[in-house]
Amino acid sequence: MPNRIPERLVAESRVIMTEIVLPEDTNHRGSIFGGRVLALIDKCAAVAAIRHARGEVLTISMDTVEFRNPVVAGQILILNGWINAAFGSSMEIEVEVRSEDPSSGARDLTTRAFVTMVAVDENGRPRRVPGLLASDDDEARRADEATRRRTIRLQNATSS
Amino acid sequence: MPNRIPERLVAESRVIMTEIVLPEDTNHRGSIFGGRVLALIDKCAAVAAIRHARGEVLTISMDTVEFRNPVVAGQILILNGWINAAFGSSMEIEVEVRSEDPSSGARDLTTRAFVTMVAVDENGRPRRVPGLLASDDDEARRADEATRRRTIRLQNATSS
Amino acid sequence: MPNRIPERLVAESRVIMTEIVLPEDTNHRGSIFGGRVLALIDKCAAVAAIRHARGEVLTISMDTVEFRNPVVAGQILILNGWINAAFGSSMEIEVEVRSEDPSSGARDLTTRAFVTMVAVDENGRPRRVPGLLASDDDEARRADEATRRRTIRLQNATSS
Amino acid sequence: MPNRIPERLVAESRVIMTEIVLPEDTNHRGSIFGGRVLALIDKCAAVAAIRHARGEVLTISMDTVEFRNPVVAGQILILNGWINAAFGSSMEIEVEVRSEDPSSGARDLTTRAFVTMVAVDENGRPRRVPGLLASDDDEARRADEATRRRTIRLQNATSS
Amino acid sequence: MPNRIPERLVAESRVIMTEIVLPEDTNHRGSIFGGRVLALIDKCAAVAAIRHARGEVLTISMDTVEFRNPVVAGQILILNGWINAAFGSSMEIEVEVRSEDPSSGARDLTTRAFVTMVAVDENGRPRRVPGLLASDDDEARRADEATRRRTIRLQNATSS
Amino acid sequence: MPNRIPERLVAESRVIMTEIVLPEDTNHRGSIFGGRVLALIDKCAAVAAIRHARGEVLTISMDTVEFRNPVVAGQILILNGWINAAFGSSMEIEVEVRSEDPSSGARDLTTRAFVTMVAVDENGRPRRVPGLLASDDDEARRADEATRRRTIRLQNATSS
Repeated sequence: MPNRIPERLVAESRVIMTEIVLPEDTNHRGSIFGGRVLALIDKCAAVAAIRHARGEVLTISMDTVEFRNPVVAGQILILNGWINAAFGSSMEIEVEVRSEDPSSGARDLTTRAFVTMVAVDENGRPRRVPGLLASDDDEARRADEATRRRTIRLQNATSS
Repeated sequence: MPNRIPERLVAESRVIMTEIVLPEDTNHRGSIFGGRVLALIDKCAAVAAIRHARGEVLTISMDTVEFRNPVVAGQILILNGWINAAFGSSMEIEVEVRSEDPSSGARDLTTRAFVTMVAVDENGRPRRVPGLLASDDDEARRADEATRRRTIRLQNATSS
Repeated sequence: MPNRIPERLVAESRVIMTEIVLPEDTNHRGSIFGGRVLALIDKCAAVAAIRHARGEVLTISMDTVEFRNPVVAGQILILNGWINAAFGSSMEIEVEVRSEDPSSGARDLTTRAFVTMVAVDENGRPRRVPGLLASDDDEARRADEATRRRTIRLQNATSS
Repeated sequence: MPNRIPERLVAESRVIMTEIVLPEDTNHRGSIFGGRVLALIDKCAAVAAIRHARGEVLTISMDTVEFRNPVVAGQILILNGWINAAFGSSMEIEVEVRSEDPSSGARDLTTRAFVTMVAVDENGRPRRVPGLLASDDDEARRADEATRRRTIRLQNATSS
Repeated sequence: MPNRIPERLVAESRVIMTEIVLPEDTNHRGSIFGGRVLALIDKCAAVAAIRHARGEVLTISMDTVEFRNPVVAGQILILNGWINAAFGSSMEIEVEVRSEDPSSGARDLTTRAFVTMVAVDENGRPRRVPGLLASDDDEARRADEATRRRTIRLQNATSS
Repeated sequence: MPNRIPERLVAESRVIMTEIVLPEDTNHRGSIFGGRVLALIDKCAAVAAIRHARGEVLTISMDTVEFRNPVVAGQILILNGWINAAFGSSMEIEVEVRSEDPSSGARDLTTRAFVTMVAVDENGRPRRVPGLLASDDDEARRADEATRRRTIRLQNATSS
């Protein structure tokens, strides 16, 4: 009988990150660089993946990211990340980014990203991660959608 | 009749920040600089204070901070911040810092800090902030303790 | 008769960026963060777009990015960016990232990205950019493919 | 007879640091973050402690820090640090921070901090440091006051 | 018969770097720090030297650098670097820095630098590098001039 | 009678800077980048020049800089800067860089640099600075040597 890794709940690896947008994150007119947001998304996804995998991870891909609203210096960025599904040694992590206006407290969705990461061992080789235990219908639906997105990714990889 | 600012709940300004400890945060042997943690504490407190005050804030003081465990590269830092009490234009913010071991998921309390910040207007002058509404016994107790700490701070300021 | 903006050649906005991967770009085991590469891609695309638009730009989206090979500290990253097509106020920029091994000089394709940016005026409103003049079959083909990708992006935006 | 470590003078480990306050150190309105000053204080104290201990050190605590004047972009910060007392493997370091106005040359005391650091060996275990030799009444008085502050710190640690 | 290292062409180690000048690179009035440009020149020279030497390099000297025009936030910096001559284990690298105005596309020469670097082995000891093969009159002339500059450098080193 | 600017002493603008060499300042083998040292020299010279000029300055040139010893992570860098001479709106600043071994306390001269800076007004135009008052033979000799170096710089600028 094979050695089983016990499954983990989605809640166990959820991540919340908060950042103030500083002048160093923006161009000389005060708008944040898209690349700065992408770097934060990758960091948020990495923490979620490290928590689920209990070890080192590498970024494999990031699905199309659209920026809805420009973010400016002085605003607050809130990132929420969680695992949608685990596939052997890889995981799909979803990250929502919201910007918060400091004077009204109003929050806008800046972007949403799907990041695929793989767990690696000390020699950088892929390493199995625990299965993901959905604890409600919402989490089960996310896992289904992640599986569909993965099928499309694998098809695109084959055809290109 | 004076213009009243509506009070706000503690929950409205709570902040969670998550960071991976990187080589650039550590000395050449991999231990995090205390100053790097203090800078994160100040940022976490600032976001809580900005949320409560709905505007710019300045750091007035940070009470004694003790570091319980060395934090090393590769660990995850989690900061939780909230307002304990509001006094006219100033606020006491409490920040808890925990370090998380990536391979076990175990969390240790690294430090706890009490930061005093003041809300300022466009000319940098103190500006009244909303009162803080305690919604349970725990929040009421924290406000009482913050008031006691403030009395001690004011006494120390007078005597020095 | 409307005021025409003269077209520009692809060659006029080509960008080459070169970076050494430093410890501060990597996790504590020496592998580069995917997010650091994404931030460099966005910077490279921004320079190409600024050169074509002769002014400020904002990132609208980045298509799916796949990382083929882990990049480690000490390697050299080379980014090549160019405009594939201009659509009114927006542009598709393609960025190729290669990693170079310092001891052999061998280069590997790390990733390829398609970034959409929009030119903005002083008030942050979209601003027309010059048309793009293809000077050979290869550039004409890239413009066609960019147009096809744009159609798909617009369809996805409508359906989501 | 035990192996004695020769004592060192206060003057041998004195540190002066000078910094220009840059936009990246400030919020989007040009006021420096308290946390940036705290990080500089910790660095200044670490250099003084490394010099006295001739080896690696860790920050144990920082006593209450009060910021007297807001520091803005363009000003110069001057930090002076020295050892007040050595207690076995730990040291109390005092750091004075002054801000200098570039157009008048006038200097204001921004803050004063008392940092406790411990010397550690290669395995991170506490390591004895040399005794501190006071060379005048002022240095002797500082050592006495440091001992009093240490007693209060130990009492607070026990009671909490 | 001695072990010969095959010579390399100048073209094999040419480097192009592109940077946007950000607020964090400038003083609080928007002019770039000379030191930021010097750091970029050193990085550009290091990549050229690493490419020619196929290994680690150290900076030995930088000849007098004059800044012709102030560079401001929002401009683009373009650095071109190449090897002028190889002398046993050391190399002279020339770096041209141009600033580009984003709204006109006009480029000005900001500065030109001559950097001497030495290739080192794993123990930090000088290591022979390949000879440099001039492929036209211009490259041959540059090598001659580099040899003349080297003679002057060695004379100055002796006399001081 | 013209409006005279009172002269200032050399001692009034002396600068001491101290830095710990961190992993982020070094290549992946732990040796500091020459460019990082050049950036620190420029910052040290800028503070001295700002103090003498009581206002904004720009870097005009840096004379040949030679690095004598490699500096590695964990060492301490000490920079000393002072004005050698003032010429109308420009100043020659000398900066000495020493590296300190943390375990022995031994200091080595890493490099010595001569930086020329110009004071500028709000519109970036050159602005007269106070004369420099030598208070001993050593300072007078330095002023003479700075004048000789300036003559050579002006000759080189004319001939090139």
